[in-house]
Amino acid sequence: METLSETGAFGGVQGVYRHASDACGCDMTFAVYLPPAARAGPVPVLWYLSGLTCTHENAMTKAGAQGWAAEAGIALIFPDTSPRGEGVANDEAYDLGQGAGFYVNATEAPWAPHFRMWDYVVTELPELVFDRFPLDRARQGITGHSMGGHGALTIAMTHPQTYRSVSAISPIAHPAASDWGRKQFTAYLGPDESTWAPHDATLLMRDRGYPGPVLIDQGAADQFLHLLTPQALIEAAADRGQPCEFRMLAGYDHSYFYVSSVMEHHVRWHSAQLALVAVA
Amino acid sequence: METLSETGAFGGVQGVYRHASDACGCDMTFAVYLPPAARAGPVPVLWYLSGLTCTHENAMTKAGAQGWAAEAGIALIFPDTSPRGEGVANDEAYDLGQGAGFYVNATEAPWAPHFRMWDYVVTELPELVFDRFPLDRARQGITGHSMGGHGALTIAMTHPQTYRSVSAISPIAHPAASDWGRKQFTAYLGPDESTWAPHDATLLMRDRGYPGPVLIDQGAADQFLHLLTPQALIEAAADRGQPCEFRMLAGYDHSYFYVSSVMEHHVRWHSAQLALVAVA
Repeated sequence: METLSETGAFGGVQGVYRHASDACGCDMTFAVYLPPAARAGPVPVLWYLSGLTCTHENAMTKAGAQGWAAEAGIALIFPDTSPRGEGVANDEAYDLGQGAGFYVNATEAPWAPHFRMWDYVVTELPELVFDRFPLDRARQGITGHSMGGHGALTIAMTHPQTYRSVSAISPIAHPAASDWGRKQFTAYLGPDESTWAPHDATLLMRDRGYPGPVLIDQGAADQFLHLLTPQALIEAAADRGQPCEFRMLAGYDHSYFYVSSVMEHHVRWHSAQLALVAVA
Repeated sequence: METLSETGAFGGVQGVYRHASDACGCDMTFAVYLPPAARAGPVPVLWYLSGLTCTHENAMTKAGAQGWAAEAGIALIFPDTSPRGEGVANDEAYDLGQGAGFYVNATEAPWAPHFRMWDYVVTELPELVFDRFPLDRARQGITGHSMGGHGALTIAMTHPQTYRSVSAISPIAHPAASDWGRKQFTAYLGPDESTWAPHDATLLMRDRGYPGPVLIDQGAADQFLHLLTPQALIEAAADRGQPCEFRMLAGYDHSYFYVSSVMEHHVRWHSAQLALVAVA
């Protein structure tokens, strides 16, 4: 693991690192924010998964999470959104290929050799960061924006014993029924829609739910609301009596101005949930 | 208007009053809580509509609203849920007749002569209380529980310039499609379902929405969830980009233990919204 930068931020350290990823078969860059409390011992972790076209950098610089994380004594991890590099498949569209990994393990050509973002985020990167940083493995939460909200919800519902709190900001809530999803799942996973179901938050909510409360935030003026369809997810949640909080906030679009506006609520949500985890 | 009692509470006064109602053709009892700030001048108002089987008294004694209202400097008004008395029609069922007015003006026999709770709550009682108490007519919010949540939502969406903030706790969200609604609307309004639509929060949300944010709270362990169906309302809200906050909270049922648990959030919600009202 190579340190690209380490910078003081809100009394802690914002670092950017690069490593050779086995899962993705290329070098991957990620960012970690350690709050001041990490100097005294392992701190809880909030994974932040980013949206289409983003790298590790967008949320790190624009989501405004570090101040709240410092206050809460919680670390932030910002993975990249796809494999990258000259030998990695790509597409001219902004919503397929590099910058658009959708947090799945691709099985189809030409994507299968590198596009294994599920394994990268769920298995490989955790092993690395828990080995290198003072992080409490028993207290992990996960959140994300847009495509990253999709990733956070699907990963948390699949591994609820690992991710003990979950939230999403403007998530792609039902990709199997959206143009943000059907195209990419067809490309990465093939036309058999049964392989898509484990990667659709609404279908997972109908099938299993989540053992704790789920926070979903959505801007009412979001220009992509018709592609995000939070109503499908919330309906599925209410149908099963899933503890949840859904907010549709007036005047906000899909940008980081919105993400940063709700970040305090999300960091505090995760901090409160992770404080309830009973550790043996 | 007759004063039945006035009692100190959280620095203010909890009063219970009786008057002869023209709308309902009988004596009606209601409760008003005036916060300490009312001694200095008119204060904003939060109307609280109660649920099936309740009188003015249940929420007054069990919802735990007065302390938060005192802090916020907001008055509370607790109307009864139906006309009452020996000359007033009734039914043996708990969910029809006295205690179950559903906040409509009945047009059908034997209910039409007395069951005019819409007019009573929207027109007659406001005239009385604004005449007698130091209340700011320009700053009114409305909330309620169960059948009262239904009333709060339908009244606010019909008169948004009067009720400048709205929330509901475990509301009957789509009565035209619920056994808590179809029976009563048939009895009070007749079989023509077009007369029901103005009294169905989900249909009103699809038709017009509300010009400000809407707060809906629901207990995840509510034994009546299948009759309340908040998911229909929230789906309609999300479909139109209605600013809203929907919470489904783990471990809570339909009781006043739940109502009192969320009352702080509701009183503060209304206080914050009413503070934004521009008064000429």
